[in-house]
Amino acid sequence: MAELRSCMATVAEEVEAVLDRTLPAVDGPQARLHEAMRYAMLGGGKRIRPFLVVAGADLFEVPRARSLRAGAAVELIHGYSLVHDDLPAMDDALTRRGRPSCHRQYDEATAVLVGDALQSLAFELLADPATHPEAEVRCALVRGLAEAAGAAGMCGGQMIDLLAEGRPLELPQILELQRLKTGALIGFACEAGAVLGGAGEAARQALRGYAADLGLAFQIQDDLLDVTGDAEVTGKDTGHDAAAGKATVVALLGVAGSRRRLEALRRSADAHLDRLGQRTAVLRAVFEFVISRSS
Amino acid sequence: MAELRSCMATVAEEVEAVLDRTLPAVDGPQARLHEAMRYAMLGGGKRIRPFLVVAGADLFEVPRARSLRAGAAVELIHGYSLVHDDLPAMDDALTRRGRPSCHRQYDEATAVLVGDALQSLAFELLADPATHPEAEVRCALVRGLAEAAGAAGMCGGQMIDLLAEGRPLELPQILELQRLKTGALIGFACEAGAVLGGAGEAARQALRGYAADLGLAFQIQDDLLDVTGDAEVTGKDTGHDAAAGKATVVALLGVAGSRRRLEALRRSADAHLDRLGQRTAVLRAVFEFVISRSS
Repeated sequence: MAELRSCMATVAEEVEAVLDRTLPAVDGPQARLHEAMRYAMLGGGKRIRPFLVVAGADLFEVPRARSLRAGAAVELIHGYSLVHDDLPAMDDALTRRGRPSCHRQYDEATAVLVGDALQSLAFELLADPATHPEAEVRCALVRGLAEAAGAAGMCGGQMIDLLAEGRPLELPQILELQRLKTGALIGFACEAGAVLGGAGEAARQALRGYAADLGLAFQIQDDLLDVTGDAEVTGKDTGHDAAAGKATVVALLGVAGSRRRLEALRRSADAHLDRLGQRTAVLRAVFEFVISRSS
Repeated sequence: MAELRSCMATVAEEVEAVLDRTLPAVDGPQARLHEAMRYAMLGGGKRIRPFLVVAGADLFEVPRARSLRAGAAVELIHGYSLVHDDLPAMDDALTRRGRPSCHRQYDEATAVLVGDALQSLAFELLADPATHPEAEVRCALVRGLAEAAGAAGMCGGQMIDLLAEGRPLELPQILELQRLKTGALIGFACEAGAVLGGAGEAARQALRGYAADLGLAFQIQDDLLDVTGDAEVTGKDTGHDAAAGKATVVALLGVAGSRRRLEALRRSADAHLDRLGQRTAVLRAVFEFVISRSS
């Protein structure tokens, strides 16, 4: 695990550098927008999604410069979603990564534009020839990320989440919510390396299976932290879901039941990885990290 | 002009059909999001940007199915920007296209998600092989649209616009604001046909020059309508810019001065089109339409 943390820290630094180069410089008449985009994206975050892209891409010996760019694009989508989710009309979150949320640091209108411009930047980054010399690969990445981010993915999941406030959801509905809200983007992150590496359908299917387990585990752990976590450690408000009457796996299965579910997901994820050959230690360790993290 | 209106009506219908097929059906647990996306995009709008894509593409004999898809992608970006611009934290507009704005018909959180999901859909549509058989062309379209939509384009212009409220801008600053806010997307629309048709740099440059004139003319006419228009005809609030203390060309040059500026822009646009050969009658007529429209 110490080794994984060191690998993750390295990739996080490399992703930060790509984001720093990709985000617009703080100048021009719209400098405030550029500054707020940088505020939202730089200097924080575990960069788990980019790490998944890199770890998946390493299975197929993809040059690191390419997987980092694809990872940065996924992180831009994730970052924009946090800025918009934190808005008063959405989750109304005061803090993010231990700092004031974007709309509190700037203002609501700026935060809306920050999210919008970050989303555009993600696709601009992917479509650039520096991401991969083959345009077919770049187009596949753009399509995959757009699907994962849109109405059939992350945005759709967020809609279901908003509709679920104060309403009792059954477990299958909650699982569907989380499959879209968190799972779709994590699924794309895991599969992107295979796309970059031109891997066959069997490998992509195994990675999708692993990603589905990981995504759900990630969300359950997130919900557990909301119930049991410490705001100073997580860097965001806790007890927020319960206060909002939000349906979560943890609310339905309880803390102990949720931890049993995490174990079952780990076994399933391992079975998917068994089909991917020898070099899956990093992806196994990521799963371990995700279900044991405290922030 | 009657002929142009008939051409525009035909293209608008065809674009509507592409959007109808592309937008998600109203089903699933996130059906409310899908319904609101359709509310925001269908059944209204002049579809000027898609028409520009089609008119530009016609110069290079691009199959209509391709230019309509690219046009629909531009319209999705335009549509998302209207939904977000109308939000209470932004322009706080009550009506749009003669109907309640999206956040009034649904709610603010849904409207944020609608805009986000429409933007994703635009890139998903462009990256699909049905848009063009060559991935290089699709990637060029994705990059161009992302640049036009993002911090160096539409979002950047909107930021400058927000910062300008109540502050006296000089004419060069206003022109820069409008070049980004409205001009970038119109510029992409005009050039997209050349990208689809594999046209050379000279043609692309001429189209960009035409687009720059058209974009500014479009915005000046928009501002003129805000001053002189009828809310029942324009389908949106009027007198809004003046009330918000917004800097516009019209506020600076006056109504008569703005109309003289429109004439100068028309002469410049004609000069650009002179370099594009014989079949530019439609693009000339579009310019005429833009500066004489009443809504």
